[in-house]
Amino acid sequence: MELKQALEQLETLQKKLYAYQCASSSLYLDSVTVAPKDTAQGRGVALGILAGEQHKLFAGPEVGALLDVLGERGEELTFSQRRQVEELSRRWRQISRIPAQEYMEYARLTNEASDVWHKAKEGNDFAAFRPVLEQLVAFNRKFAGYYDPDKAPYDALLNEYERGVDTAYLDRFFAAVRDKLVPVIRAIGEREQPDDSFLYLEYPVQGQRELADYLMEVMGLDRAHCGLGETEHPFTLEFNNRDVRITTNYDEHNLASSLYSVIHEGGHARYELNIQDDIQYTCLAGGVSMGVHESQSRFYENLIGRSLPFVRAIFPKLQELFPAQLGKVTAEQFHRAVNRAQPSLIRIEADELTYCLHIMVRYEIEKQLIGGTLEVKDVPETWNRLYKEYLGVDVPDDTHGCLQDSHWSGGSFGYFPSYALGSAYGAQMLRNMEKEFDVWGPVGRGDLSQVSAWLKDKVHQYGGLLTPAQVVKNACGDFDPSVYTDYLVQKYSELYRL
Amino acid sequence: MELKQALEQLETLQKKLYAYQCASSSLYLDSVTVAPKDTAQGRGVALGILAGEQHKLFAGPEVGALLDVLGERGEELTFSQRRQVEELSRRWRQISRIPAQEYMEYARLTNEASDVWHKAKEGNDFAAFRPVLEQLVAFNRKFAGYYDPDKAPYDALLNEYERGVDTAYLDRFFAAVRDKLVPVIRAIGEREQPDDSFLYLEYPVQGQRELADYLMEVMGLDRAHCGLGETEHPFTLEFNNRDVRITTNYDEHNLASSLYSVIHEGGHARYELNIQDDIQYTCLAGGVSMGVHESQSRFYENLIGRSLPFVRAIFPKLQELFPAQLGKVTAEQFHRAVNRAQPSLIRIEADELTYCLHIMVRYEIEKQLIGGTLEVKDVPETWNRLYKEYLGVDVPDDTHGCLQDSHWSGGSFGYFPSYALGSAYGAQMLRNMEKEFDVWGPVGRGDLSQVSAWLKDKVHQYGGLLTPAQVVKNACGDFDPSVYTDYLVQKYSELYRL
Repeated sequence: MELKQALEQLETLQKKLYAYQCASSSLYLDSVTVAPKDTAQGRGVALGILAGEQHKLFAGPEVGALLDVLGERGEELTFSQRRQVEELSRRWRQISRIPAQEYMEYARLTNEASDVWHKAKEGNDFAAFRPVLEQLVAFNRKFAGYYDPDKAPYDALLNEYERGVDTAYLDRFFAAVRDKLVPVIRAIGEREQPDDSFLYLEYPVQGQRELADYLMEVMGLDRAHCGLGETEHPFTLEFNNRDVRITTNYDEHNLASSLYSVIHEGGHARYELNIQDDIQYTCLAGGVSMGVHESQSRFYENLIGRSLPFVRAIFPKLQELFPAQLGKVTAEQFHRAVNRAQPSLIRIEADELTYCLHIMVRYEIEKQLIGGTLEVKDVPETWNRLYKEYLGVDVPDDTHGCLQDSHWSGGSFGYFPSYALGSAYGAQMLRNMEKEFDVWGPVGRGDLSQVSAWLKDKVHQYGGLLTPAQVVKNACGDFDPSVYTDYLVQKYSELYRL
Repeated sequence: MELKQALEQLETLQKKLYAYQCASSSLYLDSVTVAPKDTAQGRGVALGILAGEQHKLFAGPEVGALLDVLGERGEELTFSQRRQVEELSRRWRQISRIPAQEYMEYARLTNEASDVWHKAKEGNDFAAFRPVLEQLVAFNRKFAGYYDPDKAPYDALLNEYERGVDTAYLDRFFAAVRDKLVPVIRAIGEREQPDDSFLYLEYPVQGQRELADYLMEVMGLDRAHCGLGETEHPFTLEFNNRDVRITTNYDEHNLASSLYSVIHEGGHARYELNIQDDIQYTCLAGGVSMGVHESQSRFYENLIGRSLPFVRAIFPKLQELFPAQLGKVTAEQFHRAVNRAQPSLIRIEADELTYCLHIMVRYEIEKQLIGGTLEVKDVPETWNRLYKEYLGVDVPDDTHGCLQDSHWSGGSFGYFPSYALGSAYGAQMLRNMEKEFDVWGPVGRGDLSQVSAWLKDKVHQYGGLLTPAQVVKNACGDFDPSVYTDYLVQKYSELYRL
């Protein structure tokens, strides 16, 4: 085959994969935003078929042959083309091992599962979710073997979300985090907590919507290319670097919930919107890994969003929107309130300090579920036991326990650790930024442009052009989790005068 | 090939076509509801590719061969299978003549055109829309030749929307309608108009939303299967018989606009939701033709919705929602107001009597555009001239003139006459209903169940199992446009005491 022809085939293949991705993303987005309640069945039929078509398009031997040809001629390719071939080859090796039938069944299952999970969570009915979760675990155990038969199943799944990461690595990482943070959490437990009751007054949704608009403006998110929707569980979905959607959930009695979810998802969006044009419609478009993605979202949410300078910058707007609720509160009080550290039940509402413990619970459960040492039926009990052990809290019901997150219903096992890794990456990025320029002066004036430009330069622009490890190296230098724990220890020691 | 195998292939093919339809419908729905403004480009890439894949799936010779095999063995097939083969063969003959490249280009063009049209309409800028419209006309002229090279181009397009209908037929139909209605319209012009100023007071959107919910309930539309959204131009979109979406547009200073658009789109939805289960995911799912579809929407909107018994039934709710605006109005005054007949500029706000004249303007222009006797650049002038001639009104600008409808931007040429035909079908259905049961007693109590049951029985359930002509025969008997014109003459003679 001529090189030119092979490269044309490569481009066409990737554009088609992009189109199928758009299709299923659009159907998904619809399903969690405006679709009527009882419509999962027909959508499941469509999603199953589209997944099958996508599988047929990509998993066949002719694609393997094309990638081999291009792989052998790597020296004649541009850097971007070489990375496309590398990345597609990796994915092809995985997907070509999954039988089309199973791939389609799985697509149908995850569509159905989302619906089942929603209802189960609403009704505190784990038993309703259990059979679906059992199937999801079984599929993922099987898929893990397809992805990498040489790895233990959970390691193979972890590698999907963050290449190079495995349980040995995470066990060490989490142990180190735990050793450093648990004493701080204990010490805080003996201190007086700041008053945060004003966060839980009534905050009408309309005002919160205006706040979300304002925050997106502060983050430089162009609304002509970045939509904001409302869903039960906030998320970010990208079609391409000019079409990104974030969602949030407004709680009338919790101001911080949507405030920080918008900044969090806004961080994901900032990443996607900053990816360079010339890798659009290729497999390198989109953030490089879940860990790096979460590093960006949690960077904006916590390192910037929960810093005193940022809170001071946005506080006048908060007071303007909610004069009755915040008129007598100071920016400093607000800052202390949104950094109140206290073991709690709900991950997405957890403070920065105890957040990792929430992740560890999920990590332990996933490790055992996929490892085959824990049965689905025993998840609630294990969940509740680990929450007691790690966080010291009693889980009142599964709605506030093992049914709180959407990830498993979407078939994501091995995703959660990305949040913890991402947090750690972010802390190191901040320290590097601080060495290069004055971060806090502009942030204190509500100007995030330099921060965003640095992240674009070091992280965002590349998409998948660099590997996750290269991006981390680029922005963090040698990864050192102690930077993260030091950051937290320092921050919370100051906040609580430990 | 074994029959069993061929039938399996037939089923798989249709399910795949359904899946692609869902994908592009979902992307379209997103684009007109929540998508950020400047995102058409990336979506266009995806839609173009999906259209190409769909084309590849359906237009190939192997599908022709499959349909031939099944066509020859028609006697061994069920009625439904036979109809599927018939319908698919018809579509295959058309699509297999369209080169894949053109098909994909057209999909990209219509995606882009929607955006261009929106902006052109907003800015009263026909020049901006003109180049796109020129391309759309050129494509449709070419496609007409593919659809049926033996027909004149516009006849071939008309046949797409309502099989068996052509310009000769429509010229006669419209001439008859015009002869009957124009004298009535003239006579009304000399009468005093009823006061309808209360329809244009301020009606807050929230109240109109509650009204829309109420109307959907009255129409028996199950919200678990039928969504309600907001778009500039109201429409109905069906994924399957358990997942239908309607949209409306709330005008704060025009109560009737959304009220009757919800009933209109609700009529389309009623049809789709009533189609039988066992033809879902086949080419027979969905309403049988645009004419029959519009007969249902306009049936609910006008024949029921603008009748005195129905207005009386819903009026207490209207007064409850808008006491300040309607507290002193009577149901009878409201009925007269929503039936005020007066030549006007905007089709979708036109009254039942003058509506057909709006259609005739579009019909004349399409006939000439597709026939090649009118250039796109001359559309505004011709539009304005015909509005003056047919309706006696002066068109102030293209926003309120030839840019008002979305149809052409979506590539629909030959659709408009369906509205007029549908109106005529509906009148005859009503007369047949009245012969069989007491229509107005229950309608006067807000009970539409018998009306809906009759329509389900005669029209809805069949989807495409019967041909359009068979459905019309089933519900109307021999089609006779004079039933429609008699209905209008009688209704408006009474209203205006002519």
